Amino acid sequence: MLKNWNKPERPEEEELEERLQAARAKLSVQQMQIKEHKLPVFVLFEGWGTAGKGSILGKIIKEIDPRFFKVATMDIPTEEEKRKPFLYRYFVKIPEAGKFCFLDSGWMDEITKGCLHGELKEKQYKERIDSVKRFERQLTDNGYLVMKFFFHISQNEQKKRLKGLEKNETTSWRVSENDTWQNKHYDKCLKVYDQYLSDTNVSTSPWYIVDAKNKKWAQLQVIETLVSGIETALKNSAMAVPLLQNVFPMEKVPKLSEISLDKSLTDEEYKRQLKELQDRLGMLHNELYLKKIPVVIAYEGWDAAGKGGNIKRITGALDPRGYEVHPIASPEPHEKARHYLWRFWNRLPKTGHVAIFDRTWYGRVMVERLEGFCSENDWQRAYNEINEFEKELSDWGAVIIKFWVQIDKDVQLERFTDRQNTPEKQWKITEEDWRNRDKWDLYETAVNEMMKKTSTAYAPWHVLESNDKKYARIKALKIVIEEIEKVL
Amino acid sequence: MLKNWNKPERPEEEELEERLQAARAKLSVQQMQIKEHKLPVFVLFEGWGTAGKGSILGKIIKEIDPRFFKVATMDIPTEEEKRKPFLYRYFVKIPEAGKFCFLDSGWMDEITKGCLHGELKEKQYKERIDSVKRFERQLTDNGYLVMKFFFHISQNEQKKRLKGLEKNETTSWRVSENDTWQNKHYDKCLKVYDQYLSDTNVSTSPWYIVDAKNKKWAQLQVIETLVSGIETALKNSAMAVPLLQNVFPMEKVPKLSEISLDKSLTDEEYKRQLKELQDRLGMLHNELYLKKIPVVIAYEGWDAAGKGGNIKRITGALDPRGYEVHPIASPEPHEKARHYLWRFWNRLPKTGHVAIFDRTWYGRVMVERLEGFCSENDWQRAYNEINEFEKELSDWGAVIIKFWVQIDKDVQLERFTDRQNTPEKQWKITEEDWRNRDKWDLYETAVNEMMKKTSTAYAPWHVLESNDKKYARIKALKIVIEEIEKVL
Repeated sequence: MLKNWNKPERPEEEELEERLQAARAKLSVQQMQIKEHKLPVFVLFEGWGTAGKGSILGKIIKEIDPRFFKVATMDIPTEEEKRKPFLYRYFVKIPEAGKFCFLDSGWMDEITKGCLHGELKEKQYKERIDSVKRFERQLTDNGYLVMKFFFHISQNEQKKRLKGLEKNETTSWRVSENDTWQNKHYDKCLKVYDQYLSDTNVSTSPWYIVDAKNKKWAQLQVIETLVSGIETALKNSAMAVPLLQNVFPMEKVPKLSEISLDKSLTDEEYKRQLKELQDRLGMLHNELYLKKIPVVIAYEGWDAAGKGGNIKRITGALDPRGYEVHPIASPEPHEKARHYLWRFWNRLPKTGHVAIFDRTWYGRVMVERLEGFCSENDWQRAYNEINEFEKELSDWGAVIIKFWVQIDKDVQLERFTDRQNTPEKQWKITEEDWRNRDKWDLYETAVNEMMKKTSTAYAPWHVLESNDKKYARIKALKIVIEEIEKVL
Repeated sequence: MLKNWNKPERPEEEELEERLQAARAKLSVQQMQIKEHKLPVFVLFEGWGTAGKGSILGKIIKEIDPRFFKVATMDIPTEEEKRKPFLYRYFVKIPEAGKFCFLDSGWMDEITKGCLHGELKEKQYKERIDSVKRFERQLTDNGYLVMKFFFHISQNEQKKRLKGLEKNETTSWRVSENDTWQNKHYDKCLKVYDQYLSDTNVSTSPWYIVDAKNKKWAQLQVIETLVSGIETALKNSAMAVPLLQNVFPMEKVPKLSEISLDKSLTDEEYKRQLKELQDRLGMLHNELYLKKIPVVIAYEGWDAAGKGGNIKRITGALDPRGYEVHPIASPEPHEKARHYLWRFWNRLPKTGHVAIFDRTWYGRVMVERLEGFCSENDWQRAYNEINEFEKELSDWGAVIIKFWVQIDKDVQLERFTDRQNTPEKQWKITEEDWRNRDKWDLYETAVNEMMKKTSTAYAPWHVLESNDKKYARIKALKIVIEEIEKVL
């Protein structure tokens, strides 16, 4: 794209000034429209060192009220960030509905640096490109406007700027080692950038190459593009997007109605196995820690199916310094204002740690679907989005274990009644539980569809037959142990 | 405290088992009471390496539902954390109302390590102790239960344990360099620990030294102490606490009524000075970045006083990669569930960065006071708590600049009317603004009291006369430049 790039024609000074005034004024009006339409706008500035990303960013945000934007400067990843999936530090930065986030260098910079310095081999590069494309598409599909700018200057221009900065005492610190390296290896960089731009230039979040030689001209290109992008996006609110075909390898799962629930264990057998399996899991936890392998365990199931007690038998075996249980309730306002996976990205474990989710991102295709908290297009798209999310985790090296805790309707009624009649348990039962029970059949349909569409080979569902809780606990422990042993 | 410690007498095995059962059962019941009473419980586990903090923590959380607790393991600070004030990483971890947070090693560990390895000199140690005492008191004063346990074992016992761990392949990695060092320098450590425990043993958050030689016995000591601490705290909800006398050096500030508002600037003079001052500030921003000095700028003032436009003139001079503006609205649920300063601790800048707050922590003594969102004891205590908060920032090396943007009542009316009549500005005016205007006199009293009680020598208030916005902007720029120049 850079090689065959048609440099836009720079207008005369007077026209430039006029258009700049007009574009600024429009942007200033648009910030309120963005707020009203709850449009989140994610703007990525990439490009050559010294191309002026920072200073143009400075000009642009002058037009915007501080209530409506954030700026994030992405340096090289911290040690903490390196212990999360590659996309983590970008996903957690996505803006809220109605606001801008400007990123000064982002995932392009990280990936192309990786290529240039030999840290990313061909295969990993391709994985990264896939991740990035999914990430950007997940955002745009969920109503985000993603605008990507590449600030372009020639090798000579960069050299001139580097010299200028170095000469001046107060600016010499701005010249990074990387900038100098880049200028020396300009052609090599150009090739890598060009490849990256082509690989990620999609119609829903296309690249804009900015002629950055002249600052005012660069500013005009960016603001005009931004304004036109926003204009388009504002016309498109509540748009449905095509559903993608599944591209991931799938595993077969039974329908809920096919699952036999008469499995049980004697007290004695339970106690014996519990002790043995917990000891084993405790040892494996040490090994996971040493080998820095992250584990994500997801629990879904009927109300009163015994999720909590089941989780306790897992955590009972673990070192408390190495795991966290995340009980998932309805999202808080700042969570609701973002992509529905955002709050789960925020709760990922570090490498070597275990995160257990008591209810999960599958809420999107169960409660949010059935209660109409999202559109049909939203939840239908979510199966693939979730498969992609779990693919990220799997590529990162995580062990992913998903449990559906199954009981029948009679057992649920028994347990609800018991909770209602036992003072210490009353807090566990709410009106909502009874309402959900009324929708059993609808839920069953949704669960069957969910399990069918999200049982990928890298993150299949496991059903825990929990009419007998003891049986379900032992089965869960066995599966966790087995899945961990596979990777050790 | 360790030297003269009276080891509690260990009960016979049978009694121990009985008491353990009873204590566990109580703790299990208490988790619901804590939730109902919205009591936040912060539990700190400190002590010798290999004393069993982790494994006992594991036992205790078995009694608690994962919805009601978090565990945080505090390792050595990350690079990111090192660029925040010392207390930052602890303050952001405080539990929500109704929940537990268990800390596996915390501020004691960090401080005593600093002493033992010569990183903290006598003077800094004393500063740290002051910080810790204020921190713990701010929590307990605001209704937190803070329980501190020190796990004690003898040098011989520790040596035995270290050897045991080292022998076993699956546990040898648990022996840290620090543990070995500790055992070799046991007496030296003992002295430092003893000093720390004495220095921070206050009645509102006293230390409990746990005889940790026997695990089950240690567990009993911890749970029984925890249970009794919680019992006490539950009796005390909505308690008022004594107001502390001011101990910080203060500066005199005028009353609002004494401030003359007839200052103004011509357009020409304004433009000339603006350019000059912004250029100067831009240069200083570079220097701040290089010298890693953090800056905190706080804006308070009447509605429509011109805070937003004033802030824009400051940020217009700054590199967008080095500052953030935090518009402060009413707290979200997860913020309201914590100490009122929590959301500000979370928004502190890194060293070398500038954070600008559009409205601030002073909401506690203005809107929260006047609208009754907190008790009288709460807001009266807040003056000192805020002075302490700013002292932390100042000790950390931050430049703190606080602006009160002042206008008179007539000018406010003019601007309100103008906003109401100008379509692009209507979003800036709400019913609430009119309601607040009705309470002008009450606010004026509150503001006068606030400025008088929180104009410390290290963080004094500056009044910006803003009937003429141009005058106020130039004055703000001058003050910011002056305050920054003082530290460069």
